[in-house]
Amino acid sequence: MAWEVLSAIGTIAFAISGAIIAMEEEFDIFGVYLLGIVTAFGGGAVRNLLIGVPVSNLWEQEMMIQLALVSITLVFLFPHRLLGQWNRWGHFFDAIGLSAFAIQGALHAVELNLPVYAVVVAAVLTGSGGGIIRDMLAGRKPLVLKVEIYAVWAAMAGLLISVDLIRNDFYLYILFTAITVLRILSYTYKWRLPSRKITSV
Amino acid sequence: MAWEVLSAIGTIAFAISGAIIAMEEEFDIFGVYLLGIVTAFGGGAVRNLLIGVPVSNLWEQEMMIQLALVSITLVFLFPHRLLGQWNRWGHFFDAIGLSAFAIQGALHAVELNLPVYAVVVAAVLTGSGGGIIRDMLAGRKPLVLKVEIYAVWAAMAGLLISVDLIRNDFYLYILFTAITVLRILSYTYKWRLPSRKITSV
Amino acid sequence: MAWEVLSAIGTIAFAISGAIIAMEEEFDIFGVYLLGIVTAFGGGAVRNLLIGVPVSNLWEQEMMIQLALVSITLVFLFPHRLLGQWNRWGHFFDAIGLSAFAIQGALHAVELNLPVYAVVVAAVLTGSGGGIIRDMLAGRKPLVLKVEIYAVWAAMAGLLISVDLIRNDFYLYILFTAITVLRILSYTYKWRLPSRKITSV
Repeated sequence: MAWEVLSAIGTIAFAISGAIIAMEEEFDIFGVYLLGIVTAFGGGAVRNLLIGVPVSNLWEQEMMIQLALVSITLVFLFPHRLLGQWNRWGHFFDAIGLSAFAIQGALHAVELNLPVYAVVVAAVLTGSGGGIIRDMLAGRKPLVLKVEIYAVWAAMAGLLISVDLIRNDFYLYILFTAITVLRILSYTYKWRLPSRKITSV
Repeated sequence: MAWEVLSAIGTIAFAISGAIIAMEEEFDIFGVYLLGIVTAFGGGAVRNLLIGVPVSNLWEQEMMIQLALVSITLVFLFPHRLLGQWNRWGHFFDAIGLSAFAIQGALHAVELNLPVYAVVVAAVLTGSGGGIIRDMLAGRKPLVLKVEIYAVWAAMAGLLISVDLIRNDFYLYILFTAITVLRILSYTYKWRLPSRKITSV
Repeated sequence: MAWEVLSAIGTIAFAISGAIIAMEEEFDIFGVYLLGIVTAFGGGAVRNLLIGVPVSNLWEQEMMIQLALVSITLVFLFPHRLLGQWNRWGHFFDAIGLSAFAIQGALHAVELNLPVYAVVVAAVLTGSGGGIIRDMLAGRKPLVLKVEIYAVWAAMAGLLISVDLIRNDFYLYILFTAITVLRILSYTYKWRLPSRKITSV
């Protein structure tokens, strides 16, 4: 089923993004695997926790874990001089992963009859949570909070799903495509949300 | 009941504190909401986790979430030049929140017949946990661990409640007031706990 | 039973390591206790979460908590000029703790019939998780991800236990000794895993 495929692509993309950042930070091979796995599964772990599903359910996704491990291995072995290009592809897959995981997280929460707030939070955390944990482990400020519009698209997916506008597969695919494209546009054209700076007192 | 009111004030105060720090760190509007919500509810999430209550119970506090969202919106829209004053009020509300949440956390743990250690930890984490997560997401060292006496007041509340000294509402109010005042005094007069510096080897 | 003793030594060692880092970072006495406790119990908390055991089970280990509190107190009161030596002993106990906790975590996961992946992750997180949380709270990059071979030994313990090679007490003791010695050798002779640096794009 196509949904599994999307989910697999998301897992792969996030695993790759974690592995690349670990290599940028000069982690050893163990750190590369750890950061790849955490990025791919961290968002789902936090979501399960917040919506009351056992975190240990993650272990039933054996195929996803194998996909992540294979992806990280390929990134680690990949020829050096092509990695700049990987980084560009990484952003593309990351957008797909954000979109697929946000929609999954929202559907998960809707099935449990959680209120709108919880559905939106589940979408945001499943889509962006892995990246937040990744950045904190890598000693970086979580970029997702500062740069081009990112988690808002996940929130939008959660909102649309929670108000029952989108339920059948066809509309889910359209939503998935729209969120992915909007994220890529945000990144390409540096769309930003308003912010207000205040001076520390 | 007054207890709900105190809890609401605590939620509002922590939400405001998170929003202010997010603006100091130049997060966009999404980051401001995220940090406000995390500061207001993070402590409770960690506490639930540690004392064996489902974290998803947080979603039943719909009114609290609405209060937090409204508070953050007001902070974001607030006129720039008054924000210095907000910061001062933020410390005041933060003290109230620390006190109210520490007492709540301790009572929660006592109801579950947990040992003294767990009650003290629940008080400390509910009172200060949101701020610790807030500082880590903002890329700051958790200030609560370094500056004027803070979490110790939460620990004291937990200890007094766990040894059964304080149970009826009247004494709880006195404890709440005392903890709030002690925290404000700590901040105003820069009370510090002893520390011992050792040189890294 | 000797297993309890090893576990106690691990708890003591991690509590000491957290307390020493807190003092290096100039935390106050409260911060010293907090970081000591978090280092000693954080790994187990994350493991319980991931393998579906209630985190609150930690509170049943009252003796361990008391041991940790006493250890931290002794470190805090210890004469200044001897602390350099403590640091050296800290590494020794840390190796014991890593080994004992990794084996415990793996056995825990095996009892729950979790797949190999989960057993290895449980071993790694129980052995190294407390130190990762410690470093993040102290505002340091998690050293375990960068320096001499560390968590890999925990992963190896998990792997050996999960494939049923090692189950009876005698082999567990041999494994415990081997992991401890390998970690000490890694540290002493600066064994490192391969790493690949890529330039940030």
